[in-house]
Amino acid sequence: MSKLWGSRFKSATSQVADKFTFSIAYDQRLAKYDVLGSMAHAKMLGKCRIISSKDSSAIVNGLQKILKQIESGSWKFDPKEEDIHSNIQTVLKKMIGAPADRLHTARSRNDQVVCDVKLYCKENIYNLILGVSALQRSILKLAKANNDVIVPAYTHLQAAQVVLFAHHMLAYVEMLERDKTRLSDCFMRLNFLPLGSCALSGSSLPTDRNYVAKELGFTQASANSMDSVSDRDFIVEIIADLSILAMHLSRMSEDLMLWATKEFDFIDIDWSFCTGSSIMPHKKNPDVVELMRGASAQFPGALIEILTLLKALPLTYNRDMQLDKPVLFRSVEAAIDMLNVFSELFANIAIKKENILKRLEADESFFSVDIMEYLIGKGVSYREAHDIVGEMVKECLDGGILLSSLSENQLKKFSKHLNVDVKKLLNPKMSVRIKKSFGSTNPEMVDAQLARWHKILK
Amino acid sequence: MSKLWGSRFKSATSQVADKFTFSIAYDQRLAKYDVLGSMAHAKMLGKCRIISSKDSSAIVNGLQKILKQIESGSWKFDPKEEDIHSNIQTVLKKMIGAPADRLHTARSRNDQVVCDVKLYCKENIYNLILGVSALQRSILKLAKANNDVIVPAYTHLQAAQVVLFAHHMLAYVEMLERDKTRLSDCFMRLNFLPLGSCALSGSSLPTDRNYVAKELGFTQASANSMDSVSDRDFIVEIIADLSILAMHLSRMSEDLMLWATKEFDFIDIDWSFCTGSSIMPHKKNPDVVELMRGASAQFPGALIEILTLLKALPLTYNRDMQLDKPVLFRSVEAAIDMLNVFSELFANIAIKKENILKRLEADESFFSVDIMEYLIGKGVSYREAHDIVGEMVKECLDGGILLSSLSENQLKKFSKHLNVDVKKLLNPKMSVRIKKSFGSTNPEMVDAQLARWHKILK
Amino acid sequence: MSKLWGSRFKSATSQVADKFTFSIAYDQRLAKYDVLGSMAHAKMLGKCRIISSKDSSAIVNGLQKILKQIESGSWKFDPKEEDIHSNIQTVLKKMIGAPADRLHTARSRNDQVVCDVKLYCKENIYNLILGVSALQRSILKLAKANNDVIVPAYTHLQAAQVVLFAHHMLAYVEMLERDKTRLSDCFMRLNFLPLGSCALSGSSLPTDRNYVAKELGFTQASANSMDSVSDRDFIVEIIADLSILAMHLSRMSEDLMLWATKEFDFIDIDWSFCTGSSIMPHKKNPDVVELMRGASAQFPGALIEILTLLKALPLTYNRDMQLDKPVLFRSVEAAIDMLNVFSELFANIAIKKENILKRLEADESFFSVDIMEYLIGKGVSYREAHDIVGEMVKECLDGGILLSSLSENQLKKFSKHLNVDVKKLLNPKMSVRIKKSFGSTNPEMVDAQLARWHKILK
Amino acid sequence: MSKLWGSRFKSATSQVADKFTFSIAYDQRLAKYDVLGSMAHAKMLGKCRIISSKDSSAIVNGLQKILKQIESGSWKFDPKEEDIHSNIQTVLKKMIGAPADRLHTARSRNDQVVCDVKLYCKENIYNLILGVSALQRSILKLAKANNDVIVPAYTHLQAAQVVLFAHHMLAYVEMLERDKTRLSDCFMRLNFLPLGSCALSGSSLPTDRNYVAKELGFTQASANSMDSVSDRDFIVEIIADLSILAMHLSRMSEDLMLWATKEFDFIDIDWSFCTGSSIMPHKKNPDVVELMRGASAQFPGALIEILTLLKALPLTYNRDMQLDKPVLFRSVEAAIDMLNVFSELFANIAIKKENILKRLEADESFFSVDIMEYLIGKGVSYREAHDIVGEMVKECLDGGILLSSLSENQLKKFSKHLNVDVKKLLNPKMSVRIKKSFGSTNPEMVDAQLARWHKILK
Repeated sequence: MSKLWGSRFKSATSQVADKFTFSIAYDQRLAKYDVLGSMAHAKMLGKCRIISSKDSSAIVNGLQKILKQIESGSWKFDPKEEDIHSNIQTVLKKMIGAPADRLHTARSRNDQVVCDVKLYCKENIYNLILGVSALQRSILKLAKANNDVIVPAYTHLQAAQVVLFAHHMLAYVEMLERDKTRLSDCFMRLNFLPLGSCALSGSSLPTDRNYVAKELGFTQASANSMDSVSDRDFIVEIIADLSILAMHLSRMSEDLMLWATKEFDFIDIDWSFCTGSSIMPHKKNPDVVELMRGASAQFPGALIEILTLLKALPLTYNRDMQLDKPVLFRSVEAAIDMLNVFSELFANIAIKKENILKRLEADESFFSVDIMEYLIGKGVSYREAHDIVGEMVKECLDGGILLSSLSENQLKKFSKHLNVDVKKLLNPKMSVRIKKSFGSTNPEMVDAQLARWHKILK
Repeated sequence: MSKLWGSRFKSATSQVADKFTFSIAYDQRLAKYDVLGSMAHAKMLGKCRIISSKDSSAIVNGLQKILKQIESGSWKFDPKEEDIHSNIQTVLKKMIGAPADRLHTARSRNDQVVCDVKLYCKENIYNLILGVSALQRSILKLAKANNDVIVPAYTHLQAAQVVLFAHHMLAYVEMLERDKTRLSDCFMRLNFLPLGSCALSGSSLPTDRNYVAKELGFTQASANSMDSVSDRDFIVEIIADLSILAMHLSRMSEDLMLWATKEFDFIDIDWSFCTGSSIMPHKKNPDVVELMRGASAQFPGALIEILTLLKALPLTYNRDMQLDKPVLFRSVEAAIDMLNVFSELFANIAIKKENILKRLEADESFFSVDIMEYLIGKGVSYREAHDIVGEMVKECLDGGILLSSLSENQLKKFSKHLNVDVKKLLNPKMSVRIKKSFGSTNPEMVDAQLARWHKILK
Repeated sequence: MSKLWGSRFKSATSQVADKFTFSIAYDQRLAKYDVLGSMAHAKMLGKCRIISSKDSSAIVNGLQKILKQIESGSWKFDPKEEDIHSNIQTVLKKMIGAPADRLHTARSRNDQVVCDVKLYCKENIYNLILGVSALQRSILKLAKANNDVIVPAYTHLQAAQVVLFAHHMLAYVEMLERDKTRLSDCFMRLNFLPLGSCALSGSSLPTDRNYVAKELGFTQASANSMDSVSDRDFIVEIIADLSILAMHLSRMSEDLMLWATKEFDFIDIDWSFCTGSSIMPHKKNPDVVELMRGASAQFPGALIEILTLLKALPLTYNRDMQLDKPVLFRSVEAAIDMLNVFSELFANIAIKKENILKRLEADESFFSVDIMEYLIGKGVSYREAHDIVGEMVKECLDGGILLSSLSENQLKKFSKHLNVDVKKLLNPKMSVRIKKSFGSTNPEMVDAQLARWHKILK
Repeated sequence: MSKLWGSRFKSATSQVADKFTFSIAYDQRLAKYDVLGSMAHAKMLGKCRIISSKDSSAIVNGLQKILKQIESGSWKFDPKEEDIHSNIQTVLKKMIGAPADRLHTARSRNDQVVCDVKLYCKENIYNLILGVSALQRSILKLAKANNDVIVPAYTHLQAAQVVLFAHHMLAYVEMLERDKTRLSDCFMRLNFLPLGSCALSGSSLPTDRNYVAKELGFTQASANSMDSVSDRDFIVEIIADLSILAMHLSRMSEDLMLWATKEFDFIDIDWSFCTGSSIMPHKKNPDVVELMRGASAQFPGALIEILTLLKALPLTYNRDMQLDKPVLFRSVEAAIDMLNVFSELFANIAIKKENILKRLEADESFFSVDIMEYLIGKGVSYREAHDIVGEMVKECLDGGILLSSLSENQLKKFSKHLNVDVKKLLNPKMSVRIKKSFGSTNPEMVDAQLARWHKILK
């Protein structure tokens, strides 16, 4: 069993301890990044004449071969190695011999591992942003394909007003856009190279850390070696960002799940995204949406796991930090999966236009705010208008009367400002068309937003 | 791809959906329990003449064979099956033919899966309790082997008084004992059979659920079919219990980690439970203890995951609940591992008696409470005694004088009640010996506790 | 500013520090328990002749007066005191003079505070259990008043089968009963007296801790002084129990909220438990139910707060532990409020029987399992029966045909075992009446359960 | 009791419901922002001729008076009002009469409340950033005042190497700087005006939301009215940012607490920031630091509270969201307090230089990496150098020999590359001076960093 630090040790570690401390089972995912980091480091060691250029080249060439194996999937991890760093070091040694012994110069595993994890995060933040964009595009497509559909919108889960279905979908697009900016802010903040900080105090060898930073696409080398090996902020931040994203997905799922009930019945989710029942042959369950909501629960859990892990750890590196990786990998991979599944799902939703229209026509209270603003337009104060419409609604509901059936006389009873023309407002199309405020569900404004997003996301 | 509910479905589910909804990757762990539950169910169906006794026997015999394969490790899970229930059903059908089609009578996956999970929990609560007991025994052994060692004890991480090392260890034993009672309370509370509740309303077939309950070691059948398929309390409760256990392990780890620093230097952890540094050849790091503290972070995370999952789910079963399993399995398995590792670790701790003694001798302030109680014994009020000793401590510290070097005259300056015999108290052995209160660190009381625990845990 | 420990200190603490460290703002709630604990302690000191019986009586009498003030609400907390213990000590001293200086003998704030908190928990666990029982009674009352109402029941939020409304309500009663047993288990586990453990090692004075334990209603005195002052398990456990309770309340709220939508429209929540909209005069929002769901979110938060607080604290007392109180008090008080509000709310729910009936009549798929079991009763295997009914459902839905309109010939096409008598099953009343399994929605069984709960809860 | 929505309601809400739903007890904090938002809104209504300019002025003037009362602290909240919005509306009505009835035109409480909360967040993000900067300055001052002090630095809580104390302090400054950038990113992301989104669909009145946005310092008006009233991302994000900040404070506290033990004894915290013991007169406890660590626990708790609250809420506003405020206010206020206290605390820390020096001189293993790099500088490979130094350390420790006592001959036994000049490295000052890598503890580099931060933070 190969470890990087055995020289002084009197006896082998116990098997129980090895099993508990080895990370190779999960830090395999870092293989590619470990090799890339080592290549840049070895180049720098050669350039700065800390090792010979011959040794530098030998290392870089060896690592290049390993990288190809990793990328092609032919690399085999050795479960007897403590971690991915040892594994690669051992293989490199077998491959190129003596020069391999010089690779670990002027660095420590403390800075090496955090460098690997940062490279992993950089690539995966990019993947996550792509995933969110794909989902936005899928939603946008559904919105555009149904840009004439008007649906009830809810507050307190009580039907409130009507909006364009596309307007509702664009709310999702906005939510998801914020998720992307959060992730890219995190990217910028983490983009400082820790490699070369060594254990904690830096090195007495004449390294050029900014050269390595440039090679690996970092903004620059980190300015404090102790902070550099202690900092796991970016892991917390990514998982926090994913928790908000997941919360968004859970809210979208809830909408879809409600709309897919027999009671709402606004949408049909394709059979290919539903499952049946082992006992009730008639069931068609929206399992994928439920699992989306359920899967969102793991992110706040992961967030607590990483925050608890880091609580009150003294500077600098503590071995607890090894456990930052399973929770990070799990979260990132789950989020990417969820985004992919949801993108597909939105492509498999059909809008039940007739049902929705029936629902809209059954209920004139959707338009109470429009009547209120009609009155305000005639100079009635908000307060009075609210009271008038409240009175109308109450009387109509109590008497089982439709607002649209009221005669001019009956209307006047509530307010002298009410003419029969107010009845033109009792209509979904009119309700969206008369909206004027920026950000409203007015069809022209919604179309403009659809166009804006189409441009941003294409 | 085999599913239990396909009959009405027009088209295959999408591969993306299948990948997202299949649980076979993790619910494999339920195989044994699924078979045991089905065996009891099939017996009952035969006994109640819902199926023929011939079919019943055929099913039970087939399942018996499957069980043997599972227990011997020769069973192979089929990743193309949706879940463990389908997998076993498919194999049984191949094995015994037509009778297999009658097994799923008078039950639903909704009750089947929660029955399996309860059986898993029952067995693993037992395993967890065994694991805690083993750790207690390991701690007790260390305590007994060092039952004459006196150590500083801390409040606010400031040295406070002296106690027997065994007394400190027994605090751990007490903490862990509460963990066991919490787990066994949970066992009793979950021990009601859900099987036979069917989807949610029960069955019109003449089943005998209490027969099945008895067969499977449940207290009795559950009294409400809707609650039965909706209830996941026991998963939250186990993970909450493990969170408290893990908090205990984190506190014990912190003690050990402090004692293992060069600055405290009270214990030596064997090389076999430490690791070295890739860059600092002199390091001997207590990695196993750090990872114990780190690993404890996952339980509050898991607790949030399961609580978030269940939040505001309407009755009864929702597919979200499928995701109760990964978090349960992960938590239970991690806790069992941690208990095993910690048991071994305590067997690999050596107490550095001389260092500790040196530390005790360097600091007479450990005994200030003893002096205070000496004064109280002479009729001085607590308030006055506190002031007198405060004054003594202050003068001695400020003047760099030892309490033990004070003459009778100097003592009298602080209080007429102070005689030179008070100096006999400035001594670790005396400090523990004079304790009288129940639960104190008095050696005889500690020995009695050691004996009590030895008897309980043997 | 009065503190219990000032004697050795050279300078006053800074105001900033005082503001940050004083707990009087929240530990006021412990006043009663602090006095009760001190009374028992003072009695014991007298009985054991550690202080004179005269002093003991003076203290007890003084405390008795303070207790009366606290209970009558006339006591005024002094914000200039560090904590409730100092506050009471100062007042007692003013009241009775010198004897007050002897009260703090053979105890420490470390054991005093945890004793107070345990007494608080004991009383409030009792209050919580009463609150849960009241809620159960309110639910039971609603169930009984509507014991003939049949409602749709859901899995995956898709209408699945029909059940008695009372059966659904009894699922809630079952859930809540488990909450009570969890709380009472916690009570039993915490019921060991910490007082007299002193700072951490016990006392050299001849105390009788079991006498104090008996006086205060504890099972007995704690067996390990270090564990005693370090243990906060019971706070975590109570908050974990309340988190499960709150999860239950959130699930019940979700059901109610769905039923109160226009789309489901099964219940009417009285105006007195709803609110309106500032802009939409027609709205009647179930705000109390929403806030119930929302308020449930604080418990998992509190659970993480207390678990994070305790993570990796070395033994014994650390000042961090002071902050166990705000989160405990907040959680307990919120839970009691929520239980009270929910009890009232259930008394203000009306069942819209006609709407529900209309919904039931519109959908024969509720009875597919009944048909399946009809076939099984005739010897058809489960698998075959599932396929037959699946086929029937599919054809009927595709063709827009009602099952109840199928002729015998048409039925036979699906299975020779189907006679016209199967159509008697297409009926909510029949569906519940034919259920036979224990725990099912069969009306007689449900009545028996109602009677059982009536007896338990009266 | 005044509510904004009563007109249609048949009966008063119950007192129980009122108590449960009223938010005036905590949303008082929004008073100022509510008035500011209303002033900008009223101006816009006048400008757009939705109300008369006379009414607009009357409203603005009335609100101006209310604002002055609020800012001077003379405003009295009315606990009988449902919320702060009603309270201000009622007072305004009394003050200016009829025009007040027009203020609520073209807005809803749904957008009003989220506008108020955003304004609160904007001001308090600013305050938080000021607080972090003050803490950084306090740390920087301590660093500069001790810029010649060398201290042991730790990995795994085992002494590892030596660093400048200032270098350790600058790690804190770096951590805190990231906290500030996270908060300011959040500011930019939330800085879109929700007001005027109305309930959810926008308004049919000719408003100018971008005018209001400009008045209130927002980047612009929000682009989607449904997202606008549903979005609480920024609350989650702030609390997530504060959770990371608090994690930093907990890590810094842990360092200080260790350094303040008798065993480490590197720092002295002034009496004014410590407290004593009620039972142990000799104790001086670092309570403020402990409470800092303890107080950090509330943030992950708060984060879970808000994430749980929002989980799976359907669009758009739900009353649950009212409970976003207590957790936000609590978190922001606690963080500001903690920052202030910690700034003061760092001004009250004295470095015990002699103790530290004694510790450094007792242990030559601090310099093992320096020796290793000495060898690497002579062409020895890292691997071989690690083995050589490992061997040296082992032999010295086993034989109780100092490295500095080895003769040239003895040194050569380990490696021919070791000359006596290597012994010059066994020295703290040399150890920091020879460091060359960017970000290292080299004194010149640390001075440059001190200067850089001085410039940034002044």
